[in-house]
Amino acid sequence: MIYSGISHYADQRDAFFLENGRLRIRISAARGDMSAIYLHTRDKYIDISRQDTRDCHKMTCYASDFGHDYFFADIDIAMAGQFRKNPDMLCLRYYFELVDEAGARVYYGDSRFFSNEPSDVEAMYDCPLISRREQTFHIPQWARNAVVYQIFPTRFATTEKVDDKLWYKTPIGYKDDLRGNLRGITEHLPYLKELGVDVIYMTPIFRSNTSHKYDTIDYYSVDPSLGDEDDLHQLVDKAHECGMRVMLDGVFNHTSPDFFAFKDIREHGRKSRYYDWYFLDSDDISYGTDSEKPSFQSFAYVGGMPKLNLENPDAASYVIDVACHYIKDFDIDGWRLDVADEIGHSFWKKFRRAVKSIKSDALLVGEVWHFSPDFLQGDEWDSVMNYAFFKNIGEMVCSASLSPSGFLSQQSFLNGQYHSSVLPVLWNLIDSHDTSRFLFRAGGDKRKLSLAAAFQMLLPGTPFIYYGDEVAMTGGDDPDNRRGMIWEQSRQDLDMYRWYQRLTYFRHTIPALTSGSYSQVSADDDRSILEYHLTSGEILIFHTSGDQASAREYTGYKELLSDGTFDGTIPEYGCVLLKGTL
Amino acid sequence: MIYSGISHYADQRDAFFLENGRLRIRISAARGDMSAIYLHTRDKYIDISRQDTRDCHKMTCYASDFGHDYFFADIDIAMAGQFRKNPDMLCLRYYFELVDEAGARVYYGDSRFFSNEPSDVEAMYDCPLISRREQTFHIPQWARNAVVYQIFPTRFATTEKVDDKLWYKTPIGYKDDLRGNLRGITEHLPYLKELGVDVIYMTPIFRSNTSHKYDTIDYYSVDPSLGDEDDLHQLVDKAHECGMRVMLDGVFNHTSPDFFAFKDIREHGRKSRYYDWYFLDSDDISYGTDSEKPSFQSFAYVGGMPKLNLENPDAASYVIDVACHYIKDFDIDGWRLDVADEIGHSFWKKFRRAVKSIKSDALLVGEVWHFSPDFLQGDEWDSVMNYAFFKNIGEMVCSASLSPSGFLSQQSFLNGQYHSSVLPVLWNLIDSHDTSRFLFRAGGDKRKLSLAAAFQMLLPGTPFIYYGDEVAMTGGDDPDNRRGMIWEQSRQDLDMYRWYQRLTYFRHTIPALTSGSYSQVSADDDRSILEYHLTSGEILIFHTSGDQASAREYTGYKELLSDGTFDGTIPEYGCVLLKGTL
Repeated sequence: MIYSGISHYADQRDAFFLENGRLRIRISAARGDMSAIYLHTRDKYIDISRQDTRDCHKMTCYASDFGHDYFFADIDIAMAGQFRKNPDMLCLRYYFELVDEAGARVYYGDSRFFSNEPSDVEAMYDCPLISRREQTFHIPQWARNAVVYQIFPTRFATTEKVDDKLWYKTPIGYKDDLRGNLRGITEHLPYLKELGVDVIYMTPIFRSNTSHKYDTIDYYSVDPSLGDEDDLHQLVDKAHECGMRVMLDGVFNHTSPDFFAFKDIREHGRKSRYYDWYFLDSDDISYGTDSEKPSFQSFAYVGGMPKLNLENPDAASYVIDVACHYIKDFDIDGWRLDVADEIGHSFWKKFRRAVKSIKSDALLVGEVWHFSPDFLQGDEWDSVMNYAFFKNIGEMVCSASLSPSGFLSQQSFLNGQYHSSVLPVLWNLIDSHDTSRFLFRAGGDKRKLSLAAAFQMLLPGTPFIYYGDEVAMTGGDDPDNRRGMIWEQSRQDLDMYRWYQRLTYFRHTIPALTSGSYSQVSADDDRSILEYHLTSGEILIFHTSGDQASAREYTGYKELLSDGTFDGTIPEYGCVLLKGTL
Repeated sequence: MIYSGISHYADQRDAFFLENGRLRIRISAARGDMSAIYLHTRDKYIDISRQDTRDCHKMTCYASDFGHDYFFADIDIAMAGQFRKNPDMLCLRYYFELVDEAGARVYYGDSRFFSNEPSDVEAMYDCPLISRREQTFHIPQWARNAVVYQIFPTRFATTEKVDDKLWYKTPIGYKDDLRGNLRGITEHLPYLKELGVDVIYMTPIFRSNTSHKYDTIDYYSVDPSLGDEDDLHQLVDKAHECGMRVMLDGVFNHTSPDFFAFKDIREHGRKSRYYDWYFLDSDDISYGTDSEKPSFQSFAYVGGMPKLNLENPDAASYVIDVACHYIKDFDIDGWRLDVADEIGHSFWKKFRRAVKSIKSDALLVGEVWHFSPDFLQGDEWDSVMNYAFFKNIGEMVCSASLSPSGFLSQQSFLNGQYHSSVLPVLWNLIDSHDTSRFLFRAGGDKRKLSLAAAFQMLLPGTPFIYYGDEVAMTGGDDPDNRRGMIWEQSRQDLDMYRWYQRLTYFRHTIPALTSGSYSQVSADDDRSILEYHLTSGEILIFHTSGDQASAREYTGYKELLSDGTFDGTIPEYGCVLLKGTL
């Protein structure tokens, strides 16, 4: 038995309530080491001689990464405690029975290993149920597996009734200026609806002197180039009428130097009542040069983005009020949180409490590029922009530096390690306004883009479409990735659009695709094949190389994506969704 | 390389600031697998072509348990970033270079393994420094390595001026009733001072109808059997005059059914404004029988201890006000928190903020019997009653079911897994009012008690003396473990008392004992020997069996505990603290 591979933390990490009221307990072990793991449970306080509350659950292996197999069991607490009248248990004790491939059997409780089954209750793990239930991770129902569409508002769509007074600054190096605005987005809601979009997420729309608007001057006004408050109301209302949700970009880590509080400091120095809203190194404000940092903390040492001190209660309140304002007065559905990992946990806990008290099903998604379970314990964000998915798909499909089995392994790491409630809302992106476009990285190979989209759409999680990917737009690094949306049908790739439509259609109509209920998952690196057998009977096959692949055993099955009969071959960078002919 | 054994979480678990301002980064690997681990760091945002902020730190192995070796490196952030004028770094990127015993070299960043050194910054871990610094775990300076003495007030000491009107209830099965009270404790402060005690912790003293008082009727009055508020003032003030601290027992999980809020529910049922202060299953209040639970949630299903609903903001505020009241008005130094793990995290976060805002160096110690890192992240408790130590010492010294190397391994698990800041304040107990006395479990063998006390006193952490252990009191399970303190010198074991005195003396005078700075630590199971070489030059040897052991190599060294010359033999269940003769 590989003891060093065994890991269980008897807290929110590995013992948590699901929203269905069941308690999930997880444990991981070195990959391939265990033939079976059993979870033994009992009531903490009732002597078994008085009432035998013991129970045993065989655990299920649900993910396998480079080093670990991950196991879980879901327990029905009301069933487990059987104290006559009232079945509610107060606290659970439990331990694991580990059986390795060689047949060795070891018991594991309270972080200790025993060769004999423990009877001493102090040798067991402990789980207080009332307080653990309080920690239940509540994720908005509407957000699970929803299709998200990211819009960069200045580049998406301009209204037909363009107002010449609209003020706009052409970004440097940007060639395809559309003077996009909010009314333009509203007018294109039917386009998005037809594509199968459930959620619109817009990059910042508040007053700012840049085209990206990640340096806010005034959180309480829509940038005039994009429209006004009425336009925002209309956009949100119309989207809701179409059954779509709207999320805004919360840039709370930093502001523009022209934000009122920083301006006040520029004017009054230490005497400013906002002095502690930032981190100033010196009273002499300088914005930095190539060789010198700004005289204040800022995002990425950029002088134009002074960092807010959200440990200051007044600054924190101000920002939280902004977040609540747009939910209360505009009925937006949530916030994507910019540079969210550079803001502290205590702020996010306050932020979540405030926002959720106004709209309990508002969605909070943090921008963070790395693996960050610490923000996803149920009391801060609901989800993250899943850049791990971005890397995994890019490495497998674009650069072929990750094999299909490597992909499974990397994705399993996320499945195994993140809180289970998070998985359906992870924003699975392949590109964004912060990266080059996928098609660009794929060297313009549209087959690769189709395949990447299929991975987004046909696996659990939240597919994240960066505007224009659905018509095969390309573009290198910023600002090239932010070209104006292509609306002329002659320039759009309509096949790609229809492919995206089909994908969202099947995603919305086959629940097993999004539930992640598989009877079998396998990777074949030689054939560059990933195969997922859905419990509902469908078989999903991805093919990640430029050769044809055969899957003769399924010849004659119905192929749902093309609505044809499967001839046994999967095209290069292709994907099929098969259904038995019975 | 054993990949499944490698574990690093880039959050408060394994990357945290110490109070000295340095950033500690930890990683663990399968025991014996690594020959070296290097930590590579750089600034997150500054391109290395512009300024090379890269640094490399060899990591130190500081603990080894049954499965893992634990490594750390402490980084001086101000040194690492060297951006001309202002050396403060915003965010750190880092990755590990792992070299195994066979010479294989692997790089590890953002939870991925690489065969080549990563240059892509997205392949590195990320650590935002401002928000991470905010999470710094602040532990009261006075509490570190302090000697704690637990008093069960009704059984400790009665005042000379006993008031016949004092009300007292004889506990069942209790034979040695002393009618102890607060004035009795105050009068015996010199005794405790002489013993070397730094902190007095008393089990509950508030109004209650039981002798243990873990079912509070009124948090705002001292139980009349123990005295009154003036007595408490005097006790705290006199203790402070002697340089000792005083901690009370916070029983906030549950109350007596005679607590005003529960009484109000008994009287007014659902109409009571306190109805939500408890968890009532039925309006028909019943206190339970052998076969039926009480009609409300309670501690351990005990009808006399209804569980408070601290998710209710009013109930939470009430309790927090109580905690603050005794700190503000009585100047107590902290709270030991009863059944603390059955109360939720959000309550404890609020509780800590409130208490620390009044007295920033108040100490909060949770009662929890199992491994509980989730409460010890810097924003809830400062420490726990370390029942793992209790088990480890008991199994090694009393029942010989744990070998010296097993003991090292179990203790290393705690050292490796708990936040480093916690280690000096873990309350290392060998018994308490909730267990039989150590001497009882040792079958009356006083050599074993001496040895256990030496482990408490001569290793880092907070030695915890249960009243009377120092004069070799014995007693089985509750209530026998709560016998009246023996004050007649003829019945006291004065040798044991002097041994405890010597131990506290050396603990207080040799800083290396408490800093845990060892040049070498080893366990010899054949000889039943544990040997710690202090960096200050002393050698500490524990002998855990009933035979004599020899340590001839140190013959002639000065033996500090006996103030003699070491003859090369260590007595049965003995301990020596040696100093070279140079």
